[in-house]
Amino acid sequence: MKTDKTQKYEDLGLDTKSARDGYRALNKDGTFNVRKQNVPFWERINIFHSLVSMSWPKFFMVLASGYFLINIFFASLFMLVGTQHLTGIRGITPLDQFIEAFFFSAQTITTLGYGQVAPLNLAANIVAATESLLGLLLFALATGLMYGRFSKPYATIKYSSHAVIAPYQDINGFMFRVVNPKKNQLMEVEVTVSLSLKRSDSELRDFHLLELERSKVVFFPTMWTIVHPINGSSPLDKLTRSDVLERDAEFIVMIKAFDESFSQTVYSKSSYKAHEIKWGRKFVYLTERHGNGVSIDISRIDETFQIELN
Amino acid sequence: MKTDKTQKYEDLGLDTKSARDGYRALNKDGTFNVRKQNVPFWERINIFHSLVSMSWPKFFMVLASGYFLINIFFASLFMLVGTQHLTGIRGITPLDQFIEAFFFSAQTITTLGYGQVAPLNLAANIVAATESLLGLLLFALATGLMYGRFSKPYATIKYSSHAVIAPYQDINGFMFRVVNPKKNQLMEVEVTVSLSLKRSDSELRDFHLLELERSKVVFFPTMWTIVHPINGSSPLDKLTRSDVLERDAEFIVMIKAFDESFSQTVYSKSSYKAHEIKWGRKFVYLTERHGNGVSIDISRIDETFQIELN
Amino acid sequence: MKTDKTQKYEDLGLDTKSARDGYRALNKDGTFNVRKQNVPFWERINIFHSLVSMSWPKFFMVLASGYFLINIFFASLFMLVGTQHLTGIRGITPLDQFIEAFFFSAQTITTLGYGQVAPLNLAANIVAATESLLGLLLFALATGLMYGRFSKPYATIKYSSHAVIAPYQDINGFMFRVVNPKKNQLMEVEVTVSLSLKRSDSELRDFHLLELERSKVVFFPTMWTIVHPINGSSPLDKLTRSDVLERDAEFIVMIKAFDESFSQTVYSKSSYKAHEIKWGRKFVYLTERHGNGVSIDISRIDETFQIELN
Amino acid sequence: MKTDKTQKYEDLGLDTKSARDGYRALNKDGTFNVRKQNVPFWERINIFHSLVSMSWPKFFMVLASGYFLINIFFASLFMLVGTQHLTGIRGITPLDQFIEAFFFSAQTITTLGYGQVAPLNLAANIVAATESLLGLLLFALATGLMYGRFSKPYATIKYSSHAVIAPYQDINGFMFRVVNPKKNQLMEVEVTVSLSLKRSDSELRDFHLLELERSKVVFFPTMWTIVHPINGSSPLDKLTRSDVLERDAEFIVMIKAFDESFSQTVYSKSSYKAHEIKWGRKFVYLTERHGNGVSIDISRIDETFQIELN
Repeated sequence: MKTDKTQKYEDLGLDTKSARDGYRALNKDGTFNVRKQNVPFWERINIFHSLVSMSWPKFFMVLASGYFLINIFFASLFMLVGTQHLTGIRGITPLDQFIEAFFFSAQTITTLGYGQVAPLNLAANIVAATESLLGLLLFALATGLMYGRFSKPYATIKYSSHAVIAPYQDINGFMFRVVNPKKNQLMEVEVTVSLSLKRSDSELRDFHLLELERSKVVFFPTMWTIVHPINGSSPLDKLTRSDVLERDAEFIVMIKAFDESFSQTVYSKSSYKAHEIKWGRKFVYLTERHGNGVSIDISRIDETFQIELN
Repeated sequence: MKTDKTQKYEDLGLDTKSARDGYRALNKDGTFNVRKQNVPFWERINIFHSLVSMSWPKFFMVLASGYFLINIFFASLFMLVGTQHLTGIRGITPLDQFIEAFFFSAQTITTLGYGQVAPLNLAANIVAATESLLGLLLFALATGLMYGRFSKPYATIKYSSHAVIAPYQDINGFMFRVVNPKKNQLMEVEVTVSLSLKRSDSELRDFHLLELERSKVVFFPTMWTIVHPINGSSPLDKLTRSDVLERDAEFIVMIKAFDESFSQTVYSKSSYKAHEIKWGRKFVYLTERHGNGVSIDISRIDETFQIELN
Repeated sequence: MKTDKTQKYEDLGLDTKSARDGYRALNKDGTFNVRKQNVPFWERINIFHSLVSMSWPKFFMVLASGYFLINIFFASLFMLVGTQHLTGIRGITPLDQFIEAFFFSAQTITTLGYGQVAPLNLAANIVAATESLLGLLLFALATGLMYGRFSKPYATIKYSSHAVIAPYQDINGFMFRVVNPKKNQLMEVEVTVSLSLKRSDSELRDFHLLELERSKVVFFPTMWTIVHPINGSSPLDKLTRSDVLERDAEFIVMIKAFDESFSQTVYSKSSYKAHEIKWGRKFVYLTERHGNGVSIDISRIDETFQIELN
Repeated sequence: MKTDKTQKYEDLGLDTKSARDGYRALNKDGTFNVRKQNVPFWERINIFHSLVSMSWPKFFMVLASGYFLINIFFASLFMLVGTQHLTGIRGITPLDQFIEAFFFSAQTITTLGYGQVAPLNLAANIVAATESLLGLLLFALATGLMYGRFSKPYATIKYSSHAVIAPYQDINGFMFRVVNPKKNQLMEVEVTVSLSLKRSDSELRDFHLLELERSKVVFFPTMWTIVHPINGSSPLDKLTRSDVLERDAEFIVMIKAFDESFSQTVYSKSSYKAHEIKWGRKFVYLTERHGNGVSIDISRIDETFQIELN
C-alpha cells in the first residue's frame, strides 16, 4: 500500500519516484519520456496534429497515396456505371477502360476537366459531380495542411551542448547558452529552469524551480547566457560534482517567446543531465566588432575555457 | 420588491438565488445551464460558430444540400435562358434538359468545365460567368470552414469521474485528477476551482474561489491531481459530508492552457456536484517504470482506494 | 504660448482641453471622436483592414466590379491579339467578338476552361496563361478575405442604454449592465472604466480610472452588472447630478475578453455621457428559474425601478 | 584572457563592449545591428519568413519565375513522352511543339483544362495527373502566402524624428512622440525604453531600463508623448548634453500593442542616438477642436519650440 508521500504532486506532472539512475524526464528534443497506456483510440489520435507534424516526405507520401486510392475508387465507380456512358473512352479491354476511367477521375477531382472524356448519362454525371465536390473539399484540406505546415511557428532556439559550472561574481553559477540562429525576431523571451534531484536518503525525487540571474529579456537578437547563481538558497549549494552525478540531477529548461515572423507564441524545451555539465569551465565571449556593428560566430556556441571555481 | 442582497453580482455571472437542490450551474460538458430569452435573431446567431461547431455528418449534410440547391437554382436559370443556347444538350423532354442543365451547373460551379456542354449566347454566358465566380467564393468559404473545423484547438483534458476528499499532509483535501490523453503538449496550465454553496439559513448561494496547493504547472505531459487543502480558511472547513450534500455544493473547474500543436490558448470546463464526491478515498498512484522511462495507465484515472481521513 | 499644464499626457491619448460641453471622446459604437489630419495616403490606408471591415454588400460590389473590370481588360488584350487566334469565336462584329472574348476571359480567370473557345497562337496563349495565373492569385486573395471576414472575431457585448446611480451596500454606486447575446463563450473578461471630468475652475479635463467592485470575471455566460462604488476615494464622491452634468462627465468603458469560438482576444468599447445616467434607479433582477436551470430575459436589460439613494 | 566583467549578460542580449563611438545597437527600422556568422544554411533559412517578408515586386517575380520554370519542366516531360500522344498539337517543328506543350502544361497546372489539347496515352496521362496534383498544392501554398502577406499585422507606429529634453513638472524629462497614422485601433499599448551608456572610465557599456511617467495606455487612438522624468534615480541625472554625446548614449524603444484589425499582438522598435536629441525644446501641442470633435495634424509630429530647461 502506498503512503501519502509517494503521491506528492509536483510542478511538472512527472514521476517523483523513478529513481533508477540515468532516467531522463525530458528528452533532448523537448519531448517527455513518458508513455501513456490504454488511451482509447479516439481520445488518443489527433489527425490534424499528426499531419502537421510529420516529415515532408511522409506528408507527400500520404497525399500521393490518397490521390491514387481515391482515383482507383472513382475509376471503379465509373466502371460500374459503364464506360460507354463516358465520351471519348477508346479502350477495348477492361484494363484499358479502367486506366482511362482512372485518369478521367483524376481530371475530375482536380477540377481540371479537359473534356476529351466527359460523362453522358445520369449515373456518370452523378458520380462526376460528387467527385468534383469531394475533390474541392479534399484539396481544401490539403491546402490548409500545406499552409499549416509551412507557417507553423517553432522556436528554433539552439542550446549549448553542455552546461557549465563557472565562477559568477564572488560565487559560482550554473550556466548554459542559447542562440537564435534564424532571422526571426524573438521578443519577450522567458526562461524557466527546474532541477530534478534524487533525495540522498531515499529513491524519491524532488523538483526545484531555480532562481535565475535574469529570467526574461525584452529582445533576443542573437545569444543569451542563462545563469543560475549558486547562492545559499540554491538547491545546488554545497553539492560537489560527484553529489550531482550521484543524485542523478536533471535540469529541465523551458523557453517561451513571441516570434514576430509568425506573430505567435512559441515554446522550446530541453534538458541537461548531470553528465552534461562541465565543472570549472566558462563560455568563450563571442561578440566581435564587424564593420559598423558587431558580429557573433554562432558556430562557437559550445566553446569553453578552463577557469578556477570560487 | 427585491432587496439589495438578491442582486449581488458575483464572480461567475451566474444565479445566486437558484436555491432548488440539484441545480447545476455548469454542465459536465462545460456548457452553462442558463437560457437566454428574447435575444433578437440577428444578435443571437453566429453562422461561423455554428458551422465550425456542428458535427461532421451535419456539416457534410449542410454542404451537400447547399451544393444540390444551388445547382437546382442555376439549372432553373439555364432553363429560363433556354437550353438551346448551350452546346451539347441532347435531352428532348424538359426534365432531361433540366437534368443536363443541372450537371452543367455542377461543372460550372466547381470550375470543372469539361466543355461537352458550354454556353453559346450572351444570357447563358452571363449566368455561367456569374455562377463560376459565385462557386469560387462559396468553395472558398467551404475551404475555410473545413480547415477551421479541422484545426480548431480544443482542450482534450479528461476529468476523473469523481472528486475525492482524502488526507492531505496532516489535514484533508478536496482532490480530482485530470489527464491529457492526446500527444498535444499543453504548456502553462492554469486551473481555477470555484465552489458554489447554498447558505445554511437562506435560499441564497455564495461563490468561493478555492485556494489550491498548486494552481499552475509549466508542463502537463500526462496527469495532474489538483488539490484544495481544507484548512481553516477553506469554505469546506468543518463541513461534513451531509452538510455538503444539504448545501447543494457545486465545484466549478476551469482549466486554461496553451496547446503547442495549435499554437493557441484553450479552455476546458467541468464541474463536480456534491454527490460526485467520494469521502475517504484516495486516487491510486499510476506512474510505473517502463523500459528507459515511465508509463501511466490512463484508463485507471478513476481508480481510488479507501483511506482514513484526518 | 502654451503652458506645461496643457500638455499633460494622460491615460487615453485623448484631448484634455476640449472643454466644450457635449464633446464625446468615445462614440457609442466604440470609435474615437478624433480626426487625424495630413496623414500621407500611404501611411493612412490599410487595404486589408478596409476590405475586411466593409459591409457585405459593399464587399460583394468590390468583388463583382473587380471581376468585371479584369475581364474587360483581358477581353481587350484578346481583341488586340486578334480573336481569329481563338478557336470557336463566332461573332462577326467587333462588339460580338469582344463579348465572346469577355466570357472567354471569365472562363480563363476562374480556371473553368470549357474549351469551346481556346487560344491558338503564341500571343493568345501567353495572355491566357498569364490570366489564369493572375486569376488563381486573385481568387486566393478573395478567398482569404471571405474567410477573414467570416471568421473575424468581434465582441458582441451589448451595453445597457443607460447607466444608473443606485444604492450599493451602505453607499451608492455607478452601475451599468452588459450582456453576451451570442452562444460564443467569453472567458476571462476584464473591464476598465475611465471617467473624464472637466475641472470646475478651468476648461481642462482630467481622466480618472475608476475602481470597480470587480474588474474581472472568469466566465461571462450571460449578464454582468459592473459597479463602481462611490466611496470617499471616488472622483464622483460628493458630486450631485447637476455637478456631473455641468462638468460634462464621460464614462469610457473598455471590455477585454477571450472568445472561445474564435480562440482570440476581443475588445469592446463604449461610453456613457452625463445625460445617459439615471439617478436613483436600479436594474431589475432578471434571472428566473426555468425547468432544470435558470433563464435570463435579455430584452429586459434596460429595465430599472426607482429606489432611494443613500 | 577575458575577465568576468566583460561577460556581463544584460537585458538586451547585445554587446556591452562595442565601445567605438557611433555604434548603433538598434537601427532606425527596428532591426538589430548584429551579424550572425557561421550559422549552418539549414538553421539560418526560413523560407516562409523570407517569402512573407520580401517586397511585393520581388514576391511576384518569384511566383512568375516559379510558374515559368515549372511549365518548362513539364513541357520537357511532355516532349519526352512525345507530343503525338497529346491531341490537338499542331506544331511541326520541335520548337513549336515545345511551345504548345508549354501552354498545355500551364493549362494543366492551373487546372484550367480547355481541352483543345489533352493527353492520350498512359505516360502523358500520368504526367498530366501528376502536374495537376502538384499544381493544386503549389497554388495552395501561393494562396497561403498571398493571404499571409496581405494579412500580416505590423505596428505602423511612427516616431518623432528627434527626442527632446524638455521641462517636465519641476524637473526635466526625456520625451519623444509616437503616432498611429492608420485607422487600426491599437489597444493596451506598452512601451519600454532602455538606455545604453558607455562608462565614463572604460570602454564597457551599461544598459538601463528607464522609468516612464506612464508605460502603458489602454487605448492609442492618435498620439502619445512618452516621458522619462530625469529625477534623482535616472541614469541621465546630472548629465549634460556633452556628457550624453561623449558617452555615446542610445535610447532603445520597444512598443507592444494589440492590433484590433488583425486580432494580433504587434511590436515596434526604434532608437534615438545622442545626436538625435534636442535639448531645451518641447513638442508643439497639436490637438485642435474640429466640428463636434477634435483633430490632430499628424504631419506636425516633429514640431518643437524652444523652452528653458529647469
